[in-house]
Amino acid sequence: MRPQILLFGDSITEHSFRPGGWGAALADTFSRKADVLVRGYGGYNTRWALFLLHHIFSLDYIKPPAVATVFFGANDAAILGRQSEKQHVPAEEYKENLRKIVLHMKECSPTILIVLITPPPVDEEGRNEYARSLYGENARELPERTNETTGIYAKQCVELAKEMGLSFIDLWSKMQETEGWQKKFLSDGLHLTPDGNAVLHRELIRVLSKSWFSAEEMPYDFPHHSNIDGKNPEKAFQQQSS
Amino acid sequence: MRPQILLFGDSITEHSFRPGGWGAALADTFSRKADVLVRGYGGYNTRWALFLLHHIFSLDYIKPPAVATVFFGANDAAILGRQSEKQHVPAEEYKENLRKIVLHMKECSPTILIVLITPPPVDEEGRNEYARSLYGENARELPERTNETTGIYAKQCVELAKEMGLSFIDLWSKMQETEGWQKKFLSDGLHLTPDGNAVLHRELIRVLSKSWFSAEEMPYDFPHHSNIDGKNPEKAFQQQSS
Repeated sequence: MRPQILLFGDSITEHSFRPGGWGAALADTFSRKADVLVRGYGGYNTRWALFLLHHIFSLDYIKPPAVATVFFGANDAAILGRQSEKQHVPAEEYKENLRKIVLHMKECSPTILIVLITPPPVDEEGRNEYARSLYGENARELPERTNETTGIYAKQCVELAKEMGLSFIDLWSKMQETEGWQKKFLSDGLHLTPDGNAVLHRELIRVLSKSWFSAEEMPYDFPHHSNIDGKNPEKAFQQQSS
Repeated sequence: MRPQILLFGDSITEHSFRPGGWGAALADTFSRKADVLVRGYGGYNTRWALFLLHHIFSLDYIKPPAVATVFFGANDAAILGRQSEKQHVPAEEYKENLRKIVLHMKECSPTILIVLITPPPVDEEGRNEYARSLYGENARELPERTNETTGIYAKQCVELAKEMGLSFIDLWSKMQETEGWQKKFLSDGLHLTPDGNAVLHRELIRVLSKSWFSAEEMPYDFPHHSNIDGKNPEKAFQQQSS
């Protein structure tokens, strides 16, 4: 009965229900109004996401999600010739893969509200510190992602959103507006701290509200307990269903 | 495609996706394995929950939840003649209402795994402090819930679970095993702190695992990224679907 919000993305989506996570916060914001479903796949790029797409968004969906976030790029932007090159997808292909994802979602549900989210910025020093914490002296010297390269992917994502008239969050730019974003918003130079999660949650609420998907304006699914008469509880429920 | 875990209850369920919440932790534990849906109604007792039941669990469910938690009693146990008496439901009726909820769920899905959860203990001093923080000198003198009375409801819940052969969590007893439970597990004498949420999350994982609904033993929904060959990604997905 309730509308669904589906979160499709990589590890930053998969981890979104960890303490302080943006997915859990979203579920709380839409408590008694919409369901939040997570389809996050750590390490995935858009090329691999295409293999999942038709399983997750099926054409014979009985009730497709009302809203979907599409949040890839952090892995596509891994640099060729460095440690995570397996995940690399060229920026142009990234954009076209996103387009395929969007077109398929719209085919499943012409009314779906899609929010594209760019990858967050990269703190290269944070990535190197993280690698040293894992591998010590054997850690690679050059970060497997750079902020500049990830910025190219963020730009492609924003361009596509504008071309297709979609809502978007330019997380890469937004986060860098805040002094000290490197440690404030990123835990290992790439994934989000609770503060970073809060930025994304806030931006998402803002974008959804602008697109008329506002928790504040959606009704509770059943009467608030303060509106229930202890002696005649059925009254509140009759009003609700009439 | 994925099994669903449905959380049915009062405010302690409704708030379960707030920071540190047990619902969000459960969603994270079952990440890529099961979906967690919240049906929490703050202030509701079991009598009012019966009005919702047929809307939430419909007989023509296409795919009913695999698991449901039923977590009421904190409001039923409000004491007659005190501030929250509107919410009071006699202990015997509480037990019968729980039985109706369970029977209806089983009618919708004979294979559903139901976990009954007793109300948590009540810290009366905490309730009074909370009332004073809201109303100052005008706060009521006697707590609207007592630990002893809530314990009677917890016992009814456990009895019903044993009668019907259901899984259960005796949260009322479990929490009181820990020294200082009053402040460690309860934020206002009634609702759960992050530590209290962690107790419930841990107990739930334990009970579900014992009932063969174990996240550890459930497969990931798609290949782990480490099993994807960058040059032949389709291979990993063919294996998965065969």
